[in-house]
Amino acid sequence: MKKTLIVGTVAYDEIETVKGNSGKVLGGAGTYIALSCSHFKSNASIISVVGGDFEKKYLALLESKGVDVSAIDIIKNGKTFYWKGKYHKDWNKRDTLATELNVLADFNPKVPEEFKFPDVLILGNLHPIVQGAVLNQLSKKPTTIILDTMNFWMDTALEDLTKIIKRVNVIVINDEEAMQLSGKETLFSAAEEILKLGPKYVVIKKGEHGAMLFGEDQFFVSPAYPVNNVVDPTGAGDSFAGGLGGYLSEKSELSFENLKNGIVYGTIMASFCVESFGTLSMETVKKEQIVSRLKKFKSFTNYNA
Amino acid sequence: MKKTLIVGTVAYDEIETVKGNSGKVLGGAGTYIALSCSHFKSNASIISVVGGDFEKKYLALLESKGVDVSAIDIIKNGKTFYWKGKYHKDWNKRDTLATELNVLADFNPKVPEEFKFPDVLILGNLHPIVQGAVLNQLSKKPTTIILDTMNFWMDTALEDLTKIIKRVNVIVINDEEAMQLSGKETLFSAAEEILKLGPKYVVIKKGEHGAMLFGEDQFFVSPAYPVNNVVDPTGAGDSFAGGLGGYLSEKSELSFENLKNGIVYGTIMASFCVESFGTLSMETVKKEQIVSRLKKFKSFTNYNA
Repeated sequence: MKKTLIVGTVAYDEIETVKGNSGKVLGGAGTYIALSCSHFKSNASIISVVGGDFEKKYLALLESKGVDVSAIDIIKNGKTFYWKGKYHKDWNKRDTLATELNVLADFNPKVPEEFKFPDVLILGNLHPIVQGAVLNQLSKKPTTIILDTMNFWMDTALEDLTKIIKRVNVIVINDEEAMQLSGKETLFSAAEEILKLGPKYVVIKKGEHGAMLFGEDQFFVSPAYPVNNVVDPTGAGDSFAGGLGGYLSEKSELSFENLKNGIVYGTIMASFCVESFGTLSMETVKKEQIVSRLKKFKSFTNYNA
Repeated sequence: MKKTLIVGTVAYDEIETVKGNSGKVLGGAGTYIALSCSHFKSNASIISVVGGDFEKKYLALLESKGVDVSAIDIIKNGKTFYWKGKYHKDWNKRDTLATELNVLADFNPKVPEEFKFPDVLILGNLHPIVQGAVLNQLSKKPTTIILDTMNFWMDTALEDLTKIIKRVNVIVINDEEAMQLSGKETLFSAAEEILKLGPKYVVIKKGEHGAMLFGEDQFFVSPAYPVNNVVDPTGAGDSFAGGLGGYLSEKSELSFENLKNGIVYGTIMASFCVESFGTLSMETVKKEQIVSRLKKFKSFTNYNA
């Protein structure tokens, strides 16, 4: 059975949107990725760090979804990474009200021996040096290495970011970040430029407007799955990456065709994610619901011109 | 052979974009619609008004494309409608530098007897009373009546607009306008509300992000055809409507399936439109290029998940 290794934050979030306030809930890119990934035959394990304040029930939750949490380091005297944010009426705008790195500040990931041979590696949004440290410890190069990142690292650690980008075969990035990273003004030129940095494929997320996939001379574009009642966009991009990685973990090769389908599954997972506060949808969604939404999505996007 | 009747402005435009300045060129919603439509077996005629300053070569151009221009009223002592605009680096923003209504101010469309039995009627963006006046003169209700409009009429003639909306079966509108017209905050709720006003189908244009089609319990979404080198977005929406109407003029019924394909063709026509200043692409594009781009579009959007 294929193995998926995820590295990413496991955190406490507090989220305010026009639909309400989440209170202090489970969050973190790694959590969203792992939960989303768990709906596929991904055989996933997660590398992360939490503080002594991290509730055991959340570890149990991840475990109950088949995610191996043995490599989540628990720093007894430390506090879990905490993020508080407020979304505007325009979902694309949010204010960060608080960021407490806590145990994340000294996160030095250790990959246990049994996780050093993953087939799929998902590097969730983290300092590029931390992402690189995980890759450095592997004993075999994974078939699929997905990198997620954000503008913060472009602003503060561009050189390190460029190094890790060189070593992955799929980079997932949003539209504005793609333009910032490439210095280009159209998504096509941006993708072309990013491909030159090393990855074989570039996935550009456009939020409610869908996603694009670029390979050398290959292109695919998908709309987003339409969601009528957005409650909380937190984690949508991570759930997308988790669905993409989860789908790819079921496939033997990293082909353009598989990536296309992976993007469609990622799109579906993200659509569920935004319908509830925090990780709730990613915890509770059922395989039948995913399959049913996929079927609907096909009917929404199919034409015979 | 099916007949298509178009009503819309025929104008002079002067357009500035980051790619240059068009100089004074042929423009107008009716012109773009007619030229786009002419690439289909549409048997189109256009109802409009121009001044004595309107160059004969432009009438000849439309005629050479098979568009009947005999119902374009030429007001010898008048001047042709003129619009000057400047697009920002962000293509979605533009400033109107000049609008001279000229002969358009007193436009009172007369539908000649031979055009009173169209199968497809395309009501280009105009005062809703003018749009209604054309519909009033027809001797038979067309199978397909497509209405294009804009926020200006929502601000200044909402009651008249609501009346004409009630009488058409397809309304084409952009995303912001859909929300303004409906007072709703999501495109789904907006479309639902607009359907209640009377049309059987609502098409929401999202520019570079594609288009959505809503019917009662039916939905379709298409990305835009990716254009790497946008030169001038003027007329993109009109070319979209012209392609949609042109495709539908080749079909015997107004079905959801036909509309889906019509949207795909409209998308392709709009993608050509923005690649040149003014109407140039709509004049010069060849059937083979349209077919080839359609084939590419299918490959860009097709997946087998």
